[in-house]
Amino acid sequence: MHQRTLIAKTFWLFSILAGAFLVMAAPGLAQGKAQDPLPSWNEGPVKQAIVSFVQKVTDKSGLAYVPPEDRIATFDQDGTTWVEHPLYTQAMFALDRVHELAPKHPEWKTEPPFKAILGNDREAVAKFTDADWGKIIGVTHSGMTIEAFRKIAQEWLARAKHPRFKRPYTELVYQPMLEVMQYLRTNGFKTYIVTGSGQEFVRVYGEKVYGVPPEQVVGSDLATKYAYQDGKPVLMRLPKVFFNDNYAGKAIGINLFIGKRPLAAFGNSTGDRQMLEWTQAGDGSRLMMMVLHDDGKREYAYGPAQGLPDTRVGTFTQALYEQAKKQGWVVISMENDWNKIFAWE
Amino acid sequence: MHQRTLIAKTFWLFSILAGAFLVMAAPGLAQGKAQDPLPSWNEGPVKQAIVSFVQKVTDKSGLAYVPPEDRIATFDQDGTTWVEHPLYTQAMFALDRVHELAPKHPEWKTEPPFKAILGNDREAVAKFTDADWGKIIGVTHSGMTIEAFRKIAQEWLARAKHPRFKRPYTELVYQPMLEVMQYLRTNGFKTYIVTGSGQEFVRVYGEKVYGVPPEQVVGSDLATKYAYQDGKPVLMRLPKVFFNDNYAGKAIGINLFIGKRPLAAFGNSTGDRQMLEWTQAGDGSRLMMMVLHDDGKREYAYGPAQGLPDTRVGTFTQALYEQAKKQGWVVISMENDWNKIFAWE
Repeated sequence: MHQRTLIAKTFWLFSILAGAFLVMAAPGLAQGKAQDPLPSWNEGPVKQAIVSFVQKVTDKSGLAYVPPEDRIATFDQDGTTWVEHPLYTQAMFALDRVHELAPKHPEWKTEPPFKAILGNDREAVAKFTDADWGKIIGVTHSGMTIEAFRKIAQEWLARAKHPRFKRPYTELVYQPMLEVMQYLRTNGFKTYIVTGSGQEFVRVYGEKVYGVPPEQVVGSDLATKYAYQDGKPVLMRLPKVFFNDNYAGKAIGINLFIGKRPLAAFGNSTGDRQMLEWTQAGDGSRLMMMVLHDDGKREYAYGPAQGLPDTRVGTFTQALYEQAKKQGWVVISMENDWNKIFAWE
Repeated sequence: MHQRTLIAKTFWLFSILAGAFLVMAAPGLAQGKAQDPLPSWNEGPVKQAIVSFVQKVTDKSGLAYVPPEDRIATFDQDGTTWVEHPLYTQAMFALDRVHELAPKHPEWKTEPPFKAILGNDREAVAKFTDADWGKIIGVTHSGMTIEAFRKIAQEWLARAKHPRFKRPYTELVYQPMLEVMQYLRTNGFKTYIVTGSGQEFVRVYGEKVYGVPPEQVVGSDLATKYAYQDGKPVLMRLPKVFFNDNYAGKAIGINLFIGKRPLAAFGNSTGDRQMLEWTQAGDGSRLMMMVLHDDGKREYAYGPAQGLPDTRVGTFTQALYEQAKKQGWVVISMENDWNKIFAWE
């Protein structure tokens, strides 16, 4: 009899607590959307693919369960988590740096590729080769300590504005992707940026913009040299590529820096193909997603997949589109799957 | 009156809870040592330096406070967290691999440096140059996928025994260092292994032995190549050094992989000098420690600092010893500061 009373009392207490919880949760339930971790995503198979995947790998009783320490998600940056048109943000930074440094380099007035930059010849800039960009990165990104470089990048990011959106580049981040990153972290994932852009550059704002700390930014990098300045050790940036984190480099970089295979990978261009292949080649449940820029009104439209304009920045070929479809990668249509692109919309 | 009663009741409830807590905590309090996070360290200035440093950087009201996300501690491995004599563990692994692979390489019988290894010529092995080791690492550590290499390393670690201690190498870990790592993690630090040994090799056992996951192992590495085997992507290990995480490479590797400067760094040889210098060059309170192997009875005695024998493995020069003293790095005497070296003692 005593035990029954205890159970009854416990049940009564539980009811009160549960009631209090429901009262507290009510505003969220009433609003509906407040409960949705992905409010900027339209309902449909693409959004469902994300939610189903997360439920599968976090369900302890399921066959696809993965312990938290192995929940790794990798995100390309340019074109996947923020705007990459008309030109990659770091390329814009490099071009601005050439203008800034020009007074000290009178020879640039007649020397390609600098001549085209200083003459604001957009057509010529659009046709720059990898060798041209190598020269530009060399003079704008090296010859200083890593701290000095971070300061230069930070100051530029604080004042530079995107030519079309007239906002700082760090505000041109895709809200749906921020939601996915947060949703994954809430579910025990470690989120990484795996970018062809410069590791030091992205680390300047990665924590603030994406919630991704420096040690979770994998990117391309110049070589550095250990030296002494006034008796103090410094790391000097050299005009020499140490690592190119693009194409096969993304799979190599993931293994090098993380040493674990991602469970989920997000990209948007041919430079991300190997990262997604590498992710998919693992056991169990994996999620591979590609952003298709098919929204010229709210953002940009380019491919050339699906008959979209063929541009040289962030190329998503038809062959890659077909590979994605064939291998079960989920293609995200910016136009159809995202009801909001930027937080400030 | 009602409020007073409520306070009285709450206080009464609190007393019961506090009492229960004290009863639960009592065995620990009674034993004394159970409360000490560093029981294998003898009391004295060296142990005190660790405790004071941790208290300083975690004290929110103090000037030296550092938020958890910036609490980075880096540990050299060979000679700092585990035994490196008579030869680095990974070198032992490489020598065993040469014996295993020999039947497929009849030419090794007459070809240096393999001839010396197959003939068990210890004197010749002790004199191997970097070029010799390059050849040995090339044939023993490359030509397979990263997964195949991990399996080979894992199997070797499971069966190999140290020539003097007759135990698996993974048991020859310094208990006092494990305690420091755990103590730092309990205080919000992220602990990294920063090793001249191979990153893939250490990642095989890093989590189990040190509690350090793969993404927190920074080490030397061979280049890898993205390829396809039966239509599946693989990363093949190439006979080419990609990164040498030793000397200046340790400071470079820390910046490359972590992107933050350590607050604390632990080493034991000339290969760790730049890591400690780089750590010390940061602002605020920092802890730099060097292990001196002065305990030939329980472990090994070598320097040549302080008149200890001069060996070629894990060199701690007198010049480095003097730099340590001059710059306020704490030198750990294995003989005097550690009451226990291995967990199984």
